[in-house]
This record gives sequence, structure tokens and C-alpha cells, in this order.
Amino acid sequence: MKSTQLRTKSGFKYLLNGFFAIFAVCICSVANAADPLASWNEGPAKKAILEFIAAVTDEKSKDYVEPAERIAVFDHDGTLWVEYPMYTQILFGFERVKKLAPQHPEWKTTQPFKALLEGDMKTVGASGMKGVMEILMATHTGMTAEEFELEASNWLATTQHPRFDRLYSESIYQPQLELLAYLRANEFKTFIVSGGGIQFMRPISEKNYGIPPENVVGSSVVSEFQIRDGKPVLVRMPKIDFNNDKAGKPVGIYEHIGHRPILAFGNSDSDMQMIEYTKAGEGRRLGLFVHHTDAEREYAYDRKSHVGTLDKALDQADANGWIIVSMKDDWAQIFPDQK
Amino acid sequence: MKSTQLRTKSGFKYLLNGFFAIFAVCICSVANAADPLASWNEGPAKKAILEFIAAVTDEKSKDYVEPAERIAVFDHDGTLWVEYPMYTQILFGFERVKKLAPQHPEWKTTQPFKALLEGDMKTVGASGMKGVMEILMATHTGMTAEEFELEASNWLATTQHPRFDRLYSESIYQPQLELLAYLRANEFKTFIVSGGGIQFMRPISEKNYGIPPENVVGSSVVSEFQIRDGKPVLVRMPKIDFNNDKAGKPVGIYEHIGHRPILAFGNSDSDMQMIEYTKAGEGRRLGLFVHHTDAEREYAYDRKSHVGTLDKALDQADANGWIIVSMKDDWAQIFPDQK
Repeated sequence: MKSTQLRTKSGFKYLLNGFFAIFAVCICSVANAADPLASWNEGPAKKAILEFIAAVTDEKSKDYVEPAERIAVFDHDGTLWVEYPMYTQILFGFERVKKLAPQHPEWKTTQPFKALLEGDMKTVGASGMKGVMEILMATHTGMTAEEFELEASNWLATTQHPRFDRLYSESIYQPQLELLAYLRANEFKTFIVSGGGIQFMRPISEKNYGIPPENVVGSSVVSEFQIRDGKPVLVRMPKIDFNNDKAGKPVGIYEHIGHRPILAFGNSDSDMQMIEYTKAGEGRRLGLFVHHTDAEREYAYDRKSHVGTLDKALDQADANGWIIVSMKDDWAQIFPDQK
Repeated sequence: MKSTQLRTKSGFKYLLNGFFAIFAVCICSVANAADPLASWNEGPAKKAILEFIAAVTDEKSKDYVEPAERIAVFDHDGTLWVEYPMYTQILFGFERVKKLAPQHPEWKTTQPFKALLEGDMKTVGASGMKGVMEILMATHTGMTAEEFELEASNWLATTQHPRFDRLYSESIYQPQLELLAYLRANEFKTFIVSGGGIQFMRPISEKNYGIPPENVVGSSVVSEFQIRDGKPVLVRMPKIDFNNDKAGKPVGIYEHIGHRPILAFGNSDSDMQMIEYTKAGEGRRLGLFVHHTDAEREYAYDRKSHVGTLDKALDQADANGWIIVSMKDDWAQIFPDQK
């Protein structure tokens, strides 16, 4: 039946139409593919990225890397989304203290909770990393995995950035979205490797960046398997399990990913070890830092910043072949058009 | 030019040939796809698996699950490869003691190393878990990540199973290879979740099971980022970081994968918590245990075994809707033909 139909003129026309439809699709793909990094200005950073990807994916190149080994890791705060004026997760902790205060009358007389509830941010700041960790522990543990995921998701879906007309979770960088997509189109596996809490980022990683939860590496608290009301649950305990920052980042990569990356992208001195580890592998590697140089469209900060300090890495970049990406000069657009 | 050519008779014939070639490929695929689990005998286990996969992938079914949430986890020892008469990794540790002995004269007088070197396995056994852990620590730590990977790879590529005419790393179960492939063909993500060492399994996971290193979850030692001879390396330290067994398995899943699985496959009481956790999620779930019932083709052991004890899980299976897969009855073939 089918072959008879194909022999008729209309059958032939049908086939031809199909051919032209496919041809048209190819043309469009080529047009779209013309600049996969459209939000990156021409310059040394964009050139280095494009040359790197071309080299490691060209089977005839001496720099060729098998797809299975094409691992690209990205820091999160300040590299994929805005970290200024305060790390998003710390703000989440602060706001949860206010929300949970009625159940914690003791906080009215205990620092740094007292100061936070009174809006005395100077005293909160003076409590240092110890005080901030107490707040994070009090607000990130004691609940089940599912309860925490729900809290984080709801907060991220509703909390506005103080400066931009966007949610915190939408204050993400368009050039990096293009780079992530282009890497995956070139059979790279993309991962987040952040000092932030692993379970805080997972609810938004797929939607924001196309990075599924299992490709997120981060800091963690100890979790415990318990039976509650006859149902098995995981309970988040008030104890640090792993600090995925600085020298912890290569360790987190080893534990979670098990390969050494060939591309690493950070934005602060905390990413130096991850980038050193990446670059020390054999063959061609790429290490990059976002430099926040754009006070007008985002923020300008580096050596003496309270978030994302970029100091030693700036000094050592040239000697190590690290690419410094200037937000002002290298990025034509900061945020996605669509929120 | 092209369209002119297409209008000629030979052009048309060319298209038709192409059509029949594609048609032939389709027929072959259908024939191969007729039984994706060809090494599984017809029976309740195979039926349950096929019905489960059909239900969660059917968009019209009430049991439909989005591809992103189709997480399937498999224990390793005794579930994907042979664990009898001794866990492969422990044998690796024992053999490394013999290899490293010349560099450790103190082992000649220290138990359980002394007994192991003298072949006195009774004394080694009497040293219990504590003794075995000492052997594992001495043989699995103190080197860099790369050095350990090389040691494990070489050993796995050369060490014969004492009973089967195959390497340890080839003593893997054909029915499970088919199930893993069929799950992935149905857009499942497949993971190993094992009590074994995460870095011991990774060198063979992709080749053996099509599971890349980043999809392996296991026990780990603490690793440390160090600079050696000016090069950044990770050094394996003689301290347990995480024991991914029993109640540790759901925790390992939470940390590494970040979703609750919808299918979990184990073979011993150590897999109960992982399977309970999987089954306790909302919607349709599947939990299965391999039951080693085939003394002729593999081994027969369960309640009183020194490896892979399957006792409580056998008693609780019916009440919990766990599927017990009998190796003897449910598996038509145990090992792959190709080694």
C-alpha cells in the first residue's frame, strides 16, 4: 500500500515538501547558531571561550576531549546570579528568623537573634561568621528534607531583589545562561559548585540554568534517616556536614562528580582552588573569573568587598592564564529579558 | 540543482531506496525492542517491572512521572555484580596488603596484617569489622585521588573471579544490564547507591553499566586539597567521611541526587532503608530485591550469609509490596555472553 502511494505524483510532492521543510529547519538552526554567545561582546574573554570549546570538541585537534570528560563547573553566588548586597541564602535565613520568631520567645533575649529582630544590623554584622552560622543553623535545620525544600522554593519564588525589578531567583546572568546552553550543545556536562547550601539551590537549578538537582554540589548539614508517624523521612540536623568552599570545592568535585573538570568559572578568591585544580589536569583547560566592574547595570566590587572578594585571584590571573571577564566590557546584556 | 536531480527517475529511486532503508531499520528496532528484558523469564517480577515502567511513562496514566523525576537507584554488590564469596573491594584491600608489604615491615608483627600475610584467614575473620576497616584504611588512603584510581582500575582490569571464567569486573548480571538500558531508553536516570567505596566503583561504572562516575553514590574517606611539588592534588586521608550503607543510603541519595527515587533495587537487608525511603514517596514506586537462589549458575544464600544477608527483608516483603526477584526462576541468563 505505502509503496504504491509513494509512486503517485502527490506522494512524490509530499516527500519533496518534507525535504524542503527539513532544509528550512537546517537554515534556521544555522542562523540561530551564528552567535551562540550573543550577550557576550567581542573581546579576549569571548574569544578564549569559543576557541577552547572548538578545540576540545574537534576530533582532529590535539586538545580533543571525549564527551564523558567534558565537565564544566560554575560557582553560583556572583557567577551565575547576583550576590550583592548580601548572599541570597543569608537573607533567606534572616527573613526566616522573623517568620519563626513567635515560636522562639528565647530569641528576644539571645544574640544575634535579638539584634536581627530589632533591625540592628550592625550588631548582627559584629557577631561575625559565628553569629551568621547560628542563624543559618536555626533556620535551615530541624525540619525534614521535604519541608526545607518547600520553604526555600516558596521564598525564592516570591522574594524581590531590593534594587532590580526582579525576584532574587531571576537576578541571573544572561551571558552565563548562553554559555551553559552552548556548553551542553557541545556535549559538556554542566555543574554548579558553590559554597552555598546544596539543598537551597536545587529547587531553582533546573528552571534557572538547565542544571538538574543531581548536578548541584554545595555545602551541607548532616541529615538523619528517621521514621516519623510510621513514615521514613530525612531530618536536617544542626551540624555542618561539609563546607564546599575554597579548598573544599575540589573535594566536593571529587566526591560528587568524580572527574576533574576541564572548565571552571568563578568570581572570587574562594574559587581559586577549584580553578587551580581544574587547570592542573593534563591537556587544555580553561579557568575564568567574573569581575564585577559594572556599577551602573549591576555592581562594582572586588578587592575589599564584604561579598565575593576578588583580590589574590586578580593578582595571580596573568601568571596562571586565568581569564578575567569584565562584566562592564565583556557582557552586552546582564539579565535575561524574560523574567 | 538538487531539485532537478530529485525530479529525475533515478533521483526518485534514490529517495525510495532511502525510504526502504529507514523502514528496514524500523523493523529491526521493533524486533529488538519486542523484549527489552530478554534475559528475564516471564513471571511476576518481570511483569511488575514492565507494568511500572509503562505506567510512569504514559502521559495519560494517573501514575505518570516527569522524566526529570524518573530516578532509579541500584545497589552494587550482589545487585549488579557478584559479591560472593567476598566483597570485591575487600579482596582488593587484601591483595594490596600483600603488594605493599615490602614497604611496611611493621605489618609482619601487627594484626590483622600479620595473619593476612601468613594466609591465616581465620584470624583475619576473627578481627571482625574493625580489622577489615584497618586493612581498608591502610590500602585505600595515603595516596592521591589519581593514584588510587589507577590502582583500582588496574586491579579490576586484571583480577579473575575464583569460580567463573571471567574477571571480577565482568561478573555482572545480564538481566540488570538490560533493565538499566531499558530504564534509560524510557528517560530514567540510573544511579548506583552502594555501601562500597565511591571511588572504587567509578573506574568501571560507565563501561560496565553505562552509569557515568557522577551517578555513583558510595562510601567515602575524607579527602584533602594539597599542593605537592607545586601541583594541586587531592589526598585520601585515613578517616571515614561517610558510610553509605543501611540508613546512610537515603542520606547519600539526598546529598548526591537531591530527588527521592521512584525505583530502588537492592539485594540485602542493608538496602531496606533505601527501598523504604523510595516507596514512601507519593505516587507509584517500585522496590525490588535480588534473591540469590541459584547455586548452580551463581550462588544460593540469604538469611545466614556472611555477605548480602537477606533476612528481615524477606519476611517484610509481602506486607510492603517489595518484589523479590529469584535469580533461579526470574533470570534466564546470569552473565553477559561477551566478556
